[in-house]
Amino acid sequence: MTFQQAKRAERMNPSIIREILKVTEKPGIISLAGGLPSPDTFPVQAMREAAERVLRDNPREALQYAASEGYGPLREWVAAQLNAQGLNVEAAQVLITTGSQQGLDLVGKILIDAGSRVAVESPTYLGALQAFNPYEPQFVSVPCDDNGPLPEQLDVARGARFLYALPNFQNPSGRCMNAARRDALMARAQEIGLPVVEDNPYGDLWFDEPPPAPLSSRWADGSVYLGSFSKVLAPGLRLGYVVAPKPLYPKLLQAKQAADLHTPSFNQRVVHEVIRDGFLQQHVPTIRAKYKSQRDAMRAALEAHMPAGCRWNTPVGGMFFWIELPEGVDAMALLPHAVENGMAFVPGSAFYADHPKLNTLRLSFVTVSEERIEQGVKALAQTLKEQQR
Amino acid sequence: MTFQQAKRAERMNPSIIREILKVTEKPGIISLAGGLPSPDTFPVQAMREAAERVLRDNPREALQYAASEGYGPLREWVAAQLNAQGLNVEAAQVLITTGSQQGLDLVGKILIDAGSRVAVESPTYLGALQAFNPYEPQFVSVPCDDNGPLPEQLDVARGARFLYALPNFQNPSGRCMNAARRDALMARAQEIGLPVVEDNPYGDLWFDEPPPAPLSSRWADGSVYLGSFSKVLAPGLRLGYVVAPKPLYPKLLQAKQAADLHTPSFNQRVVHEVIRDGFLQQHVPTIRAKYKSQRDAMRAALEAHMPAGCRWNTPVGGMFFWIELPEGVDAMALLPHAVENGMAFVPGSAFYADHPKLNTLRLSFVTVSEERIEQGVKALAQTLKEQQR
Repeated sequence: MTFQQAKRAERMNPSIIREILKVTEKPGIISLAGGLPSPDTFPVQAMREAAERVLRDNPREALQYAASEGYGPLREWVAAQLNAQGLNVEAAQVLITTGSQQGLDLVGKILIDAGSRVAVESPTYLGALQAFNPYEPQFVSVPCDDNGPLPEQLDVARGARFLYALPNFQNPSGRCMNAARRDALMARAQEIGLPVVEDNPYGDLWFDEPPPAPLSSRWADGSVYLGSFSKVLAPGLRLGYVVAPKPLYPKLLQAKQAADLHTPSFNQRVVHEVIRDGFLQQHVPTIRAKYKSQRDAMRAALEAHMPAGCRWNTPVGGMFFWIELPEGVDAMALLPHAVENGMAFVPGSAFYADHPKLNTLRLSFVTVSEERIEQGVKALAQTLKEQQR
Repeated sequence: MTFQQAKRAERMNPSIIREILKVTEKPGIISLAGGLPSPDTFPVQAMREAAERVLRDNPREALQYAASEGYGPLREWVAAQLNAQGLNVEAAQVLITTGSQQGLDLVGKILIDAGSRVAVESPTYLGALQAFNPYEPQFVSVPCDDNGPLPEQLDVARGARFLYALPNFQNPSGRCMNAARRDALMARAQEIGLPVVEDNPYGDLWFDEPPPAPLSSRWADGSVYLGSFSKVLAPGLRLGYVVAPKPLYPKLLQAKQAADLHTPSFNQRVVHEVIRDGFLQQHVPTIRAKYKSQRDAMRAALEAHMPAGCRWNTPVGGMFFWIELPEGVDAMALLPHAVENGMAFVPGSAFYADHPKLNTLRLSFVTVSEERIEQGVKALAQTLKEQQR
């Protein structure tokens, strides 16, 4: 090839999940593999009205170049929202991003040198590994239990540039850190001077009670916080945000400016128009109720059908069940058989930076109906039983 | 600070232009400094109707996660459009980006290692320097005349990862390469194996006749082409595209996926809805006519008022005049005096990767009225005369 590629390009790979989804996109397959929110939850009518109002009242501002920081009133809204959840931030610390995926890219860009150590949970969000990878870090997995990273094991991450953590209904494991774990983890992180990048796309999707206050509320100067509108409004708008301590903010802003100048002003104004008068207070409970009911359906199906030796925890929010199969079962090898039986899942190995647990898989309960959840889980159980014979 | 920053963060800086614009944002100042298109040209009504149709007919698709490559019909449209201009590309080579600024970032990400040489024009687009800078290149300026880079001087760029070139109505110089220069430049680039990254945000804004066929049409395998909807529709949608040779495309796509998953599907569908039936064939001529008339107003004002010893070429498209002041006049030092006299410009030194010509400045003729263009130029001329006394 004429082009000589950068060394970092070798670290980029097609998403394994994407490749898996292609294979499983056959008609009739019940896919519990996706990570998409349910389109039934998109507030289409509110969006239509908001788009119309923005283009009627402020078309020039909505369609012109805008500030790299983001739309002022939206930044104010984000700050107020986070402060109600226990943070203590100013709008000036909020950077609007093109989805929270961009937040991950920008954080990687300003904090990771080739060879830097970056600590992650085990398992962790695949998209973050993909975002950080081009900056050539060395990943360090922090040992975790059902409650998240183990504070007493955090020393393995000493000297890392940061710990990347998803405390609420983690993708893929569904787990949620309790308050005591958050306290202990952040206390230890601060003791060893390990900054934390907290990613919270799912926090609003709690079923019975809100999760404890963010990790960042426990050590503000050492935390970067990422949020998103993808799960409470719609992902196709690509709207997220990063909140950073004041000394770090200018570099993040410069990286943002270099990356795409600014997030579309139209989208920022439409979303602000939708949410400004408390819309989410009515809307998000409807998502919670729907997802909770589907979570219940999947739990019931798992209990009814899965063979002995499988283990899962019931997520108290979010979108995913995480299943541990009996030792020795390789979920990746199981997948083609499951697809033959009419269902698909994501093998868990994709979500590990190192030492993947091959006997794990992720099931989404939000995109298919309760009836099909039951059928899909039944087909998975059937596949397992066939393969264990 | 708690956070240890990446080495590349040192290379990021606040945009000089941004800082200048802040200083010049005083009430009453006639700013010829901006690089924004005129909001009078935004097709607001067409956007309103398109947004409404998209949210009425395909709300779930428009608001859901989507393919990283971009919206299929929009990619088809881009390919067809470029093929009509002399390229020979397939839709599969088109990647939709969040503005063409993101295209620059992705190109830098996959092609630049720390210390790589990257060749640029002299002067060149500041935003590209900002996009490439975090990847720590060593810039090499290729000597240029009024027609662009000099093919016989291209050897200074031997071994560079690519030459970044803006052949049409370049920002900041306004110059347009003629066909003979394009032929000679690309022939020489191919001889020495120097790939070319061609950036074309302004190509549609020609006043009398379209510019010659793209550089990329002359050496397809060695060229990456960037385009944008910012200047023909509206920049606030952040919609651009990159066209890459097939062997390079997958890495670009993986970089895109890591950067923001995909460009907002809503925006892609709205723009496709606006342009699908030939809207731009009616719309772009109105922008050309407006900008040409304002170009004429600025030319007349320059001829009427500027003191002897100043030099400029009349741009045949785009948005900018590039002025060379008499040797020894420092445009940066002149700026505060110009602001005092009621006008603002951008000092040319910001647009050089190295060896800035201090006696240059850029004037935009598209955002203020013809009457104020005349006043602004007069104030600039007045300032020059005062300072030369």
